[in-house]
Amino acid sequence: MPSERHYLDHASTSPIRPEAAREVRAWLDEAVSGDPGRVHEEGRAARGAIEDARADVAAWLGTRPARIVFTSGATESVNAAVSGAARAAPGRPIVVADVEHSCVRDASSRVAPVLAWRVDRLGRVDLGHLDELVSGGGDDRPALVNCQLANHEVGTVQPVSEVVARCRSAGVMVHVDAAAGAGYLGLDLEGLGADLVSLSGHKLGAPPGTGLLYVRQGLRLDPLIVGGSQERARRAGMENVPAIAGLGAVARALAATGALAEAAGTARAQTDALAAACSGVGDTVVLGDPDTRAPHLVALAIGGVRAEAVLLGLDRAGIAAHSGSACSSESIEPSPVLAAMGVDPDISLRLSVGWSTEDADVTAFAEAIGPVVSRLRALGDP
Amino acid sequence: MPSERHYLDHASTSPIRPEAAREVRAWLDEAVSGDPGRVHEEGRAARGAIEDARADVAAWLGTRPARIVFTSGATESVNAAVSGAARAAPGRPIVVADVEHSCVRDASSRVAPVLAWRVDRLGRVDLGHLDELVSGGGDDRPALVNCQLANHEVGTVQPVSEVVARCRSAGVMVHVDAAAGAGYLGLDLEGLGADLVSLSGHKLGAPPGTGLLYVRQGLRLDPLIVGGSQERARRAGMENVPAIAGLGAVARALAATGALAEAAGTARAQTDALAAACSGVGDTVVLGDPDTRAPHLVALAIGGVRAEAVLLGLDRAGIAAHSGSACSSESIEPSPVLAAMGVDPDISLRLSVGWSTEDADVTAFAEAIGPVVSRLRALGDP
Repeated sequence: MPSERHYLDHASTSPIRPEAAREVRAWLDEAVSGDPGRVHEEGRAARGAIEDARADVAAWLGTRPARIVFTSGATESVNAAVSGAARAAPGRPIVVADVEHSCVRDASSRVAPVLAWRVDRLGRVDLGHLDELVSGGGDDRPALVNCQLANHEVGTVQPVSEVVARCRSAGVMVHVDAAAGAGYLGLDLEGLGADLVSLSGHKLGAPPGTGLLYVRQGLRLDPLIVGGSQERARRAGMENVPAIAGLGAVARALAATGALAEAAGTARAQTDALAAACSGVGDTVVLGDPDTRAPHLVALAIGGVRAEAVLLGLDRAGIAAHSGSACSSESIEPSPVLAAMGVDPDISLRLSVGWSTEDADVTAFAEAIGPVVSRLRALGDP
Repeated sequence: MPSERHYLDHASTSPIRPEAAREVRAWLDEAVSGDPGRVHEEGRAARGAIEDARADVAAWLGTRPARIVFTSGATESVNAAVSGAARAAPGRPIVVADVEHSCVRDASSRVAPVLAWRVDRLGRVDLGHLDELVSGGGDDRPALVNCQLANHEVGTVQPVSEVVARCRSAGVMVHVDAAAGAGYLGLDLEGLGADLVSLSGHKLGAPPGTGLLYVRQGLRLDPLIVGGSQERARRAGMENVPAIAGLGAVARALAATGALAEAAGTARAQTDALAAACSGVGDTVVLGDPDTRAPHLVALAIGGVRAEAVLLGLDRAGIAAHSGSACSSESIEPSPVLAAMGVDPDISLRLSVGWSTEDADVTAFAEAIGPVVSRLRALGDP
C-alpha cells in the first residue's frame, strides 16, 4: 500500500503486529516445520511452540492454559460455543440480543429457538429483561445466554460481569463474544466466570486464521469440528502453528505492565479526535453509549449523505473506513445492529483505530471528512 | 532444525514450499492488509488475492472457481461435507469404510447411523458391497457415501471414479476425501463428478490454516460455520488471506505442465528405495495395495520391533517418520485403519516424502534403519 494510506478500519481487521510477524518469519525461515501431534523432533518443536503460546494467552487473559482452545478464528469459536451449548440442551432456547454479531445471531437461530433480548437506543442490553428470560423452567430454560463484551459496530460496552453473575445465579450457561473490545478493555476470564468466551486473533494484530475459545473448568462441550485429538479433542485438525505462535507473541505484548492502559488511552484520544472532526461537518450524532464506548472505535450518523458515498470519497482521499450500510461490505443486508438501535445504517460511518494508528492518520481524516461531506451535500446526495 | 535432519513425514504435514513462502512474506512486508469483505482499497486488494488464488486452485483441479470454498483445513472441510449432507437427509445413514481418516469416521458417526463399508486386507473398498449399501430405499437410503482418494496410512488408492459412478447411478451423494493423494495422483474434479471433495493445504506445502471444499454445481450445502457472507455464505469468518494466497501459488506450481508426473515419479522412486531399505532388515511386509499405492507414502510392518522404539531410534538418527501406533502420536488409540486391514499397528512404520525430499534423505534412512532395528531386536524388543 502506498504510504499515503490511512487505515481506520482496525475493527474489521488489524495489520499484523511486528511481534507476530517475527514469529511467522521465524517459522518461514526454518527448513522444516512438523505436525505438533507427532513424536519426532520437528513435531515436538511445533508442540512446544503451541503450548508456549497457550501459556502466554492464558496469562494475558487471567486463566489457565488448559481452558484455552485454539480455533481458526472468532467466527468458528462462536459457532462452536453456540452449537455445543445447544447440543447439551436440545430444543431449549438461546438468548440473543439484536446487537450481537451476525455469527452469534446466525449460529444461534439455526440450532435453537431464539429469545430476543431487548436493547435500548444506545445498544445496551436490558438486565431486567434478562432476569425474565432466564427465569423459565423446563424446556423454557435457556440453553445459553450470549452477551458481547462490546458492540462491534458502535462500541457500546455491555455489563458483562453483571450479565454473567445473573446467569450463574439462574444456573444458565453464558457465552461472551469478546472479539470486539479485547485488547482495549480489561478481560480477566477466571474473575469474569463466564462458561464460554470467544476471541479473534486477527483483530488484535495476530495472524489471520487463529482465534480462541475459552471453556471454563469442568465444562465438556461437544466440539464443532471432530475427528482428531488436537486441542485435547476439543477441536480437530492440525494446529496452525505459526499463527498460534504469533497470537502468543501478541498476548505477551498485551499482557505487559501498562500496555492495556496505554493502548486504551491512545485509542480513546484518537477516536475522540475522529468524532470531533466529524462533528465539524454538522448534523452528526455519535452512536452507541457515550459513557461506556470501547476506546478503539466510534460510529457516527452523518445527516444528508449516504454512507457508501462517504466511504468512497474517503477511500479516494487515502482513508479506509467502514459503515453499517450493506454497500460498504459484501454483506447482503444493512446492519441489523443499527436497525435494532433505531439508526439508519445508510448514514452511518465507523472509524476504528489500532496498534499502528498514528496521529497523522487522525489528522488526515480530519482534513478529508469536511470536503468529502460538503461535496456530497452540495451534489444533493442522497 | 539442524541440517542433518531428514524429514520423512510429509503425509502428516509438508514444509511450506518456496512459492507459498513468497506469498506469505509479501503479505508480511505490506504495511496494511485489509478485510476482503470491505470496499476500501485494502479490502479490494485482499479480495483480489483470494479470487486469484481461487482461480488458480480451480484451474489446477479442473473445475470452476465458484465451486471452491476455502476453509481452515481438510478436517473442517470434511466436517462441513458430512454435517451438511446429514442435515439435508436427517436420520438417514452415511457410508464409511474403516480405512477412512478419523475425521471422516467421527464426523459421520456423530450425525448419522454409519453403514460400515467392507475393505479387504489391502484396504481396498468392496464395490459389490457398495452396490448393496446404496440400494436401500426410504430411510435406508444413504445420505452420503464417503470415499478417500488414497489411504493416509498405507497409500492404497481407491477406485474413486468407479465409486462416484455407482453412487451417481444410485442417486446417492458422494464425498471424496482427497487430503492424502492430492498433488501425487491426478484429480480432475469436473471429470470425477463427485458432489463434495475435501483437500488440505498444508499437506501440499501450502501454509497451515487453509484447505478447501469442492461443492458441485447446484448443490446447496448447509454450512458448518455460519454468520457471515464470506465464501458466498458457505463458510463464515474472515478469510485467511496470506494462507489462501500461498495455496494459490502451490496450485499454480502443481498445475504446471509435467509437474504431476515429475512429482509422482520422484516420490515413487524415493518410496520404493525406502521400502527396499526396510526389506534389508528382514521380516518386513509392505502394507496396503502394492499395485495402486500412492507414490509419496509407504507403510511397512517390521517384525520383532515395536513402532515406538523404531521411531525414537530413527529420530535420534535425525530421521522423522510416523506409525499407526498410538504412542507415535498424540492419538489415544492405535490406528483403526491398520486394524481394519488385520495389521498390528504397533509394528508399523509409515514413511512419506514430499517436494523437499532429496536422495540424501533416502540414503540417510537406508543407513539408519538397519542398525536401529538390529539393536532393538538384539535387546529383545518387544
